[in-house]
Amino acid sequence: MSRTAIAAELDRLTALRLVEEIGPAGFRGGRSATIDISGSVRFVGIAIGATSVSVAVTDGRLQVLALHRTECDVRQGPEPVLDLATKLSRKLLLGSGVDKPLGVGLGVPGPVDFGRGIAVSPPIMPKWDRYPVRDRLAGQFDCPVAMDNDVNVMALGEQLAGVASTVDNFLFVKIGTGIGCGVVANGQLYRGMDGCAGDIGHIRVPECDVPCLCGNTGCLEASFGGAALGREALAAARSGRSPLLRELLERNGTLTAAEVGQAVSAGDAAAMQLVRDGGRRVGEVLTGLVSFFNPSLIVLGGGLTKLGHILLAEMRSVIYRRSLPLATRNLPITMSDAGQRAGVIGAARLVSDQVYRLPR
Amino acid sequence: MSRTAIAAELDRLTALRLVEEIGPAGFRGGRSATIDISGSVRFVGIAIGATSVSVAVTDGRLQVLALHRTECDVRQGPEPVLDLATKLSRKLLLGSGVDKPLGVGLGVPGPVDFGRGIAVSPPIMPKWDRYPVRDRLAGQFDCPVAMDNDVNVMALGEQLAGVASTVDNFLFVKIGTGIGCGVVANGQLYRGMDGCAGDIGHIRVPECDVPCLCGNTGCLEASFGGAALGREALAAARSGRSPLLRELLERNGTLTAAEVGQAVSAGDAAAMQLVRDGGRRVGEVLTGLVSFFNPSLIVLGGGLTKLGHILLAEMRSVIYRRSLPLATRNLPITMSDAGQRAGVIGAARLVSDQVYRLPR
Repeated sequence: MSRTAIAAELDRLTALRLVEEIGPAGFRGGRSATIDISGSVRFVGIAIGATSVSVAVTDGRLQVLALHRTECDVRQGPEPVLDLATKLSRKLLLGSGVDKPLGVGLGVPGPVDFGRGIAVSPPIMPKWDRYPVRDRLAGQFDCPVAMDNDVNVMALGEQLAGVASTVDNFLFVKIGTGIGCGVVANGQLYRGMDGCAGDIGHIRVPECDVPCLCGNTGCLEASFGGAALGREALAAARSGRSPLLRELLERNGTLTAAEVGQAVSAGDAAAMQLVRDGGRRVGEVLTGLVSFFNPSLIVLGGGLTKLGHILLAEMRSVIYRRSLPLATRNLPITMSDAGQRAGVIGAARLVSDQVYRLPR
Repeated sequence: MSRTAIAAELDRLTALRLVEEIGPAGFRGGRSATIDISGSVRFVGIAIGATSVSVAVTDGRLQVLALHRTECDVRQGPEPVLDLATKLSRKLLLGSGVDKPLGVGLGVPGPVDFGRGIAVSPPIMPKWDRYPVRDRLAGQFDCPVAMDNDVNVMALGEQLAGVASTVDNFLFVKIGTGIGCGVVANGQLYRGMDGCAGDIGHIRVPECDVPCLCGNTGCLEASFGGAALGREALAAARSGRSPLLRELLERNGTLTAAEVGQAVSAGDAAAMQLVRDGGRRVGEVLTGLVSFFNPSLIVLGGGLTKLGHILLAEMRSVIYRRSLPLATRNLPITMSDAGQRAGVIGAARLVSDQVYRLPR
């Protein structure tokens, strides 16, 4: 860029309160000055989960200044949940010494029409369907708001502040109640034509014919994920294959992935087999995606990664065995290290990317 | 960009002979002038196939000025094949009135290390392994040279001059002797970490256990493509399932996809079933990729697309049935219309993208 163009751009950013002079230039005379991102820049990142809301306030470099997480059932619908998130955000902002954010980013556990800022037919949060989330928050905070699904937002957070910070092409695979994937291609989040890229829960698992709610058989989500694992654990308990799972069922009245994790820790053979089968199925699907996408890295996140090494080992084994040698020669498959922060940091980044972007 | 920056960039492009003044400005006074891509800009696009070499010379807008195709066995090795391509290029360049191209692009039927400009362990052209193709041509033409595999180059050609010209996210699937895929994401060719993105020939086909040369079973390329189809046609002829294929085998001494095509045209039931089975298998694999990648378009190219509607209908049927409704709502699956020109135009574009790129 020419000096003139740089000066004009700095004027624009200064007017937007995005940058400020922090002192004279270190080694140049004349009109030069040292410029930095303004200390008063704040972004808000909100990660809405099925049963929780997390809010972070960051500075202009997306460093987290304050973070708070609280229980909250997403099924209550958008208004009570967004009111809670807004209240939390304002409290954290005040604590950070600035009352107005330059942008608010948001991740929600369901399909999102990114361009319109609404959730579209989200299975676990039906009351949110087509509710104007972005526009409502933009009105309340009087600043740009961006919303995406939780997996995309976590992938962005992983890229900014996690294990994926040094790679341009990676997959973030979230194994929770369902299974989804965030795709980063050539350094950019890849959303596909309708924003549903990475929707891998209904890819068919070879040699698997479990019926799925979608009407097909053998879908990944029908054969693994929190919902499927709970169902299989129930069958193992009732059939007597796992006395420990039966005991846990009788004690708790229900079986979820958490109880399967307990049984695995206690060395229960049937529970370990359920997790191994699940790891193999996820691995089978990822194997095809590795051949197609040739990523530099696969990052695993979501609640079921608590099942730990036994799950990871089985997935790795399938992927390394079946993928092309060239595509797996340098392919690490690893657990997320940004963890719960990935969601809020990614949400803040989602909107900061828009705020910092050069005007067309 | 500022006026100063534009003026500097135009000076740079003029010095490179990329642009020239073509007259005074239409409606402005002062120093303004109408600028256009220089009429003397030439790019060469070379598409090397298993048994042919095609060469095109284009102008600065990648319009084909001259095109020539000739038989040539790629197994002869790089030197005779490249000598032939060079000779053809020089002849076409002279005919176009300019002896020196600004760039030469090249597509070859095997895996390419794009950064180094060499083929790496290419199965059907073993003598080319690690031969310095790019550097040799760059020395001969004294200009930038870029090389990629044939599928990527065809995808670029399809994007520039074919059905994919209006979309940003699409798959170009080539079904020839083998099966490969070019991936365009966010408007850019996507190569993956090692340049092997789109290498879908060894993705596993559900419910298929044909042994593959790679050591696994059920690979896509083991169950369809020219090689697999020839093998299956032979079995159908020998078992007596297809009297017509047996007759063609006896007459020609061999059976390839071309004979299967003949038998399909004649209404042979066994041949039609082979093509339908193949279409279903390709469709099964593409179904998973559609869920993952959410493309706007799938373009089919390669020799086996000559099998026509029966193949396309079966693929479509599987993809539309099994993919997520959102991902297939607006998904056309169509034959390439750039055809053989896609390769040479894509090759020319491969290098023109480098030549036109702004310096860092």
